[in-house]
Amino acid sequence: MIQRIKTKQIRVGGVLIGGDAPISVQSMTYSKTRDVAATVEQIKRLHFAGCDIVRVAVPEMEDALALRAIKEQISLPLVADIHFNYRLALEAAKVVDCIRINPGNIGEKSRVKDIVKACQERHIPIRIGVNAGSLEKIFDTRYGQSAEGMVASAEYNIKFLEDLGFSDIKISLKASDVERTVAAYRLLRPKNSYPFHLGVTEAGTKFHATIKSAIGLGTLLLEGIGDTMRVSITGELEEEITVARAILKDSGASSEGLNIISCPTCGRIEADLVSAVSDIEARTKHITAPLNVSVMGCVVNAIGEAAHADVAIAYGKGSGLVMVKGDVVAKLSEHELVERFISEVERMAKES
Amino acid sequence: MIQRIKTKQIRVGGVLIGGDAPISVQSMTYSKTRDVAATVEQIKRLHFAGCDIVRVAVPEMEDALALRAIKEQISLPLVADIHFNYRLALEAAKVVDCIRINPGNIGEKSRVKDIVKACQERHIPIRIGVNAGSLEKIFDTRYGQSAEGMVASAEYNIKFLEDLGFSDIKISLKASDVERTVAAYRLLRPKNSYPFHLGVTEAGTKFHATIKSAIGLGTLLLEGIGDTMRVSITGELEEEITVARAILKDSGASSEGLNIISCPTCGRIEADLVSAVSDIEARTKHITAPLNVSVMGCVVNAIGEAAHADVAIAYGKGSGLVMVKGDVVAKLSEHELVERFISEVERMAKES
Repeated sequence: MIQRIKTKQIRVGGVLIGGDAPISVQSMTYSKTRDVAATVEQIKRLHFAGCDIVRVAVPEMEDALALRAIKEQISLPLVADIHFNYRLALEAAKVVDCIRINPGNIGEKSRVKDIVKACQERHIPIRIGVNAGSLEKIFDTRYGQSAEGMVASAEYNIKFLEDLGFSDIKISLKASDVERTVAAYRLLRPKNSYPFHLGVTEAGTKFHATIKSAIGLGTLLLEGIGDTMRVSITGELEEEITVARAILKDSGASSEGLNIISCPTCGRIEADLVSAVSDIEARTKHITAPLNVSVMGCVVNAIGEAAHADVAIAYGKGSGLVMVKGDVVAKLSEHELVERFISEVERMAKES
Repeated sequence: MIQRIKTKQIRVGGVLIGGDAPISVQSMTYSKTRDVAATVEQIKRLHFAGCDIVRVAVPEMEDALALRAIKEQISLPLVADIHFNYRLALEAAKVVDCIRINPGNIGEKSRVKDIVKACQERHIPIRIGVNAGSLEKIFDTRYGQSAEGMVASAEYNIKFLEDLGFSDIKISLKASDVERTVAAYRLLRPKNSYPFHLGVTEAGTKFHATIKSAIGLGTLLLEGIGDTMRVSITGELEEEITVARAILKDSGASSEGLNIISCPTCGRIEADLVSAVSDIEARTKHITAPLNVSVMGCVVNAIGEAAHADVAIAYGKGSGLVMVKGDVVAKLSEHELVERFISEVERMAKES
């Protein structure tokens, strides 16, 4: 498991962020927020998919006024996403569990002051959500839309909030490309201990958004950076959660669920490995116990991988071995291997 | 663009690896290599998908003897993948463009010596392909299957080849998890200048293999590490190439093709962005010119992103702007935007 950089802990509704809290997964609805029924339905879908915190856009007063009805029908913590108009933030702050402001477009600092006061009164945190595409003019002019510009904006706004006695803060520094995103988070991390909300913004459709987010968020998670995260995919809900959870698992930042090691298949293979692995993947989806399993098609790495796996199959010609913690527990014909493997996995999941 | 760490340049058939050569993409067939027709068919599919170098497994002498017939029917550089039996390497070396050996399982060093001699005579390189799951016993015992153990094995074998006057080498250090893979490549990089073949091994089926490879290879590419790469996906051919190319593009290691920035859609949106982006993605697939485009659903980041985009759409309510290099070139109704956008992209692609 990766050693996380220790951050201050804050609370968004019932979810802790930072400190020793698990890295939480967020998403955002794409319904009109004023359409309460549609928004509640999307939030419930996200909740079911494993989302920890949900955010909704609040572009107009009608949307802000719908938040109370939404909040009453959901149990996920609710974040209001505010741009341009501080009055929307003041209205939202009466109801939601966190306010996200984009400091680059709220305008006069006296308005931010009012937002801070409203959040202070209800003890809800503020996310300073810096986006490279919408920096304050002063930082855009001085640094361009660079990592340095994003960090300068974040630091300026952190100080502004701190000077008002407010430190219930989390920070995001999103750019639409991986390099700037990673650079910005790395640059700001040593400068304070506020929890970070990770994300690559406007990452595109499913395929590229998955890859951009995996590279960007994965790189940071490997360094112990990141306390909560969102994967942005154009037009998807559940998929954002699935990808986010997979990035956590595959980077080693979370151990929950099965890690399936399987070889890519090559000319050495004597068995129908692809069917076996697909079968195993489908039948173990529900398991949350942190198990490492390997399903290998030939002897080259099978025994080495099995030594570190909780449960393993090493296929040979027409038959193979089931191994538990590196020990052979059965030598079976090919068609019996998956059944035995799964029963061993289920047994270990129960025990763990 | 990322600054790559400068490496020695080698040649695999007609493909240069290392130095200032573009990062090449490799894959591997899963047919029985002795089945010449099936193997040639898979190699042609990979070639068509954009693969630069192909590798085949050579588990038995029948496979080694099939290499000549395969080589005659393909134009991609051919690499023979050898484990355990050095005689297979000697036979393969008569025909192929590169030999991959797993030093952990070739056995006595006198046998490696014979392989080196065979490669020297035909001026073909050797990939020292270290796998965490099959280290030499001495390193496995001393370090376990750790990054340190992988690096110790690589260094030992590099020195062995160098002492025989052989330096036509590339190196891979693959583990089945991202953390060890990244750690091993990082550890070895400052110690020599041989080109690196990147890969996370046994990464599993499509979804997780994509994410593991994106995290592992992306993290290294962002640091300028990596000269050639393979994405391993259980039971896939073309998909390995598509994912590898996307990792290169999305990490910023390659600029080829369109980079589409599109927002995830939220309650602010007034247009059918998902259809527009899908349409644009499908209709610009063939373009190899390195263009940045953005398709944004509201004003929050649209203008900021458009300023850095070659071509952009900023949607509003019922209409929107087409922008070129930050300048508005047209204000059109919603249904006209994509057409104009694509004609601008095609024009710029022609000019570039």
